[in-house]
Amino acid sequence: MIRGVGWGEDTSAPAPPLDPVTGPNGMSAVDVVVAKRDCRELTAEQIDWIVGAYTRGEVADEQMAALAMAILLNGMDDRETARWTQAMIDSGERLDLGDVGRPLVDKHSTGGVGDKITLPLAPLVAACGAAVPQLSGRGLGHTGGTLDKLEAIPGWRASLSTDEIRAQLADVGAVICATTPSLAPADRKLYALRDVTGTVESVPLIASSIMSKKIAEGTGGLVLDVKVGTGAFMKTTARAGELADAMTRIGGAHGLPTTALLTDMSRPLGRAVGNALEVAEAVEVLRGGGPPDVVELTVTLAGEMLRLAGLTDAPDPAEVLASGAAYPVWEAMIAAQGGDPSAPLPRARHVETVTADRDGVFSGADALAVGTAAWRLGAGRARKEDSVQAAAGVRLLVGPGDPVQAGTPLLELHTDTPDRFQGARRAVTGAALLIVGDPDATRPRDLVLDTVRSG
Amino acid sequence: MIRGVGWGEDTSAPAPPLDPVTGPNGMSAVDVVVAKRDCRELTAEQIDWIVGAYTRGEVADEQMAALAMAILLNGMDDRETARWTQAMIDSGERLDLGDVGRPLVDKHSTGGVGDKITLPLAPLVAACGAAVPQLSGRGLGHTGGTLDKLEAIPGWRASLSTDEIRAQLADVGAVICATTPSLAPADRKLYALRDVTGTVESVPLIASSIMSKKIAEGTGGLVLDVKVGTGAFMKTTARAGELADAMTRIGGAHGLPTTALLTDMSRPLGRAVGNALEVAEAVEVLRGGGPPDVVELTVTLAGEMLRLAGLTDAPDPAEVLASGAAYPVWEAMIAAQGGDPSAPLPRARHVETVTADRDGVFSGADALAVGTAAWRLGAGRARKEDSVQAAAGVRLLVGPGDPVQAGTPLLELHTDTPDRFQGARRAVTGAALLIVGDPDATRPRDLVLDTVRSG
Repeated sequence: MIRGVGWGEDTSAPAPPLDPVTGPNGMSAVDVVVAKRDCRELTAEQIDWIVGAYTRGEVADEQMAALAMAILLNGMDDRETARWTQAMIDSGERLDLGDVGRPLVDKHSTGGVGDKITLPLAPLVAACGAAVPQLSGRGLGHTGGTLDKLEAIPGWRASLSTDEIRAQLADVGAVICATTPSLAPADRKLYALRDVTGTVESVPLIASSIMSKKIAEGTGGLVLDVKVGTGAFMKTTARAGELADAMTRIGGAHGLPTTALLTDMSRPLGRAVGNALEVAEAVEVLRGGGPPDVVELTVTLAGEMLRLAGLTDAPDPAEVLASGAAYPVWEAMIAAQGGDPSAPLPRARHVETVTADRDGVFSGADALAVGTAAWRLGAGRARKEDSVQAAAGVRLLVGPGDPVQAGTPLLELHTDTPDRFQGARRAVTGAALLIVGDPDATRPRDLVLDTVRSG
Repeated sequence: MIRGVGWGEDTSAPAPPLDPVTGPNGMSAVDVVVAKRDCRELTAEQIDWIVGAYTRGEVADEQMAALAMAILLNGMDDRETARWTQAMIDSGERLDLGDVGRPLVDKHSTGGVGDKITLPLAPLVAACGAAVPQLSGRGLGHTGGTLDKLEAIPGWRASLSTDEIRAQLADVGAVICATTPSLAPADRKLYALRDVTGTVESVPLIASSIMSKKIAEGTGGLVLDVKVGTGAFMKTTARAGELADAMTRIGGAHGLPTTALLTDMSRPLGRAVGNALEVAEAVEVLRGGGPPDVVELTVTLAGEMLRLAGLTDAPDPAEVLASGAAYPVWEAMIAAQGGDPSAPLPRARHVETVTADRDGVFSGADALAVGTAAWRLGAGRARKEDSVQAAAGVRLLVGPGDPVQAGTPLLELHTDTPDRFQGARRAVTGAALLIVGDPDATRPRDLVLDTVRSG
């Protein structure tokens, strides 16, 4: 088939070639790229073939990179996005969790600073009667990964076999572990590519990436926590709403009851940012204490998860959490994966404080600034192959509305490598820490901004 | 530097990374891709760095593919395109042709069916007093390459050293040879990438590809033959005009006097399409005969080249060509590169004819159809590594306005491999060969559609 014609007759650059035929019906990777480049809708056959062929290594990285950019700039409609999700699921195996004796329900967060909600949430929902199969990832950039946080616990291991996941769900009701390699391998390969080609920021590609793994995992319901604000991937409610809509529509198309909550990420969640620091805060919450925003979001998400699980007569998650009744489930969950829930958590070798530069009322800390500081202290990775410091991070010493004076300690910076203090301090100077003259300027935070449910 | 933030906190897909810094001022390939993706103008520093780093292998193919797609969809302005061209020139060496005793002037065609114009043009312009350093390429797809055509001549070799090019320009006044490997290596690498990623069709990238090689070659003037029509890369005058404008503006920005002619490619040029067949037709033209359209275009381009060379008192190229005075220059040019200009050209082992299916007046053949037929007969390549048949191709036996009857032979199909006849016949059936009832419907062809000159 002739695709174009030469423009380089007199030059060393050859004219466009006649494509080597590689797909069904003479389809080639260039055909698929050109279709999306020229704003045409991709056919189901094109999507199935290119996702599968890319996973098998038959379509080159540079071809998929060009397609990803064309998708980012020209979009995909609902039908294309649902099919793309299906093709990513079909690139691997669906997890067979069998019958664990309780309804399965899961939660996914798009990532935020201090977002340790999964840690108290999974045991809480299990304590209320559902089973939570939380297959998670590691962090990259200034938001931490759930597995990185749990690995701060001595002995805890992230990798489980499917049999172990199934057994733990039946016994404990909650498991937080690494995704298995057979789950949506297309997504793993495609995400690594998008990451280095400036093509992460595509709503259909983000939505299909998240949903393909959750659908392949086999959960019976899904609550999505879509973060909005400086510390989130989505900076505006409009953009976050677009992602929430795309994901709930995919859930609907695949028969997975899905609810997306848009939640505020202009401020860090709670007062601890960093792996061991966040585990400690999660344990406080599980024992009935902890920062009010972490408690509120945990309870809200738990309520929605129990609703999707159909557990209409489940106990009130707020009461269960406040009573400390979820804590034994946490202990069992950690112990089942080799962890010692009573062992002391790692502590940083060096701690410095950041103080107020003037008198006033503390109004809050910018999420991106605090996340960046924690990352620079060693809590996060710059590259996938980097390791993280379990004890590094930031602790907020004051809460919104607290009066401060010049010199009042506001933050603790924790690290094992003191040469990192300087970079961390740079992140949290000036406007990053808001101190206002008028206490009335400190409004209570609206945590949940919007809710979107699949049809 | 933090570029984005995580969306994958709870998944195995990592959040966007903190870029490894690889360029000056902390620039990374992803930064450059994201800038163009978000419709920002690329800085000179970004362009210089990414083109150079890609040529050196420091920027990955998939990153450049994403950038090429972003450029195709979001464009580059004149300043960016001129700088991109400069960066491609700077990726290699400029040819030093020194003083060859005559003004240097060159021509480039964007490629057409039966476009053998370079073959008579270079000797003609040399016969009129200029020197033509024509560094050329091989063909891919349905338009042939100049080197492929000349290689039909027994003994002729395409590869010359810079010293040989210089000596031949001084002695003969014309050289047609392969580009040297040191000429704009960025373009060679980038073109191969665009070719497999659906990113050929970008005006700034096409323009900078062509112009970088011609500027690096060191010509003192340049005439561009921008083909328009079914058999050309640019199907419409608007699109061809866009390319002509972009190229002449690059010429202007680089101080290279440049003229672009938009010429018709809805019909093949002349009556011969295929390597040896076109050489034979070129020789007819050089001896003072040949099809009128080939003569007209050769003379028009020669006149513009002589104008750019400043040879205001040069002889009239129409008269020189008609007199056969350019033929000895052709003989010298071929002989200087080891070819025997008097040796018989290869002839195809198998020839079939295509006949008229009804009575009427022959109005013309579609350029794409004839080009495709010739390509299928073996005159062109499907892939870069393919070889071509010197003798394969198509000969038109009738001209526009000739009366035909059902059964009158219209075309000869030439090939060494008779299994190719069927595919070739498929290309030239039906509407590909126009036979009309009314002789007045056959209008004379307007060869030159428009002219654009650098400022």
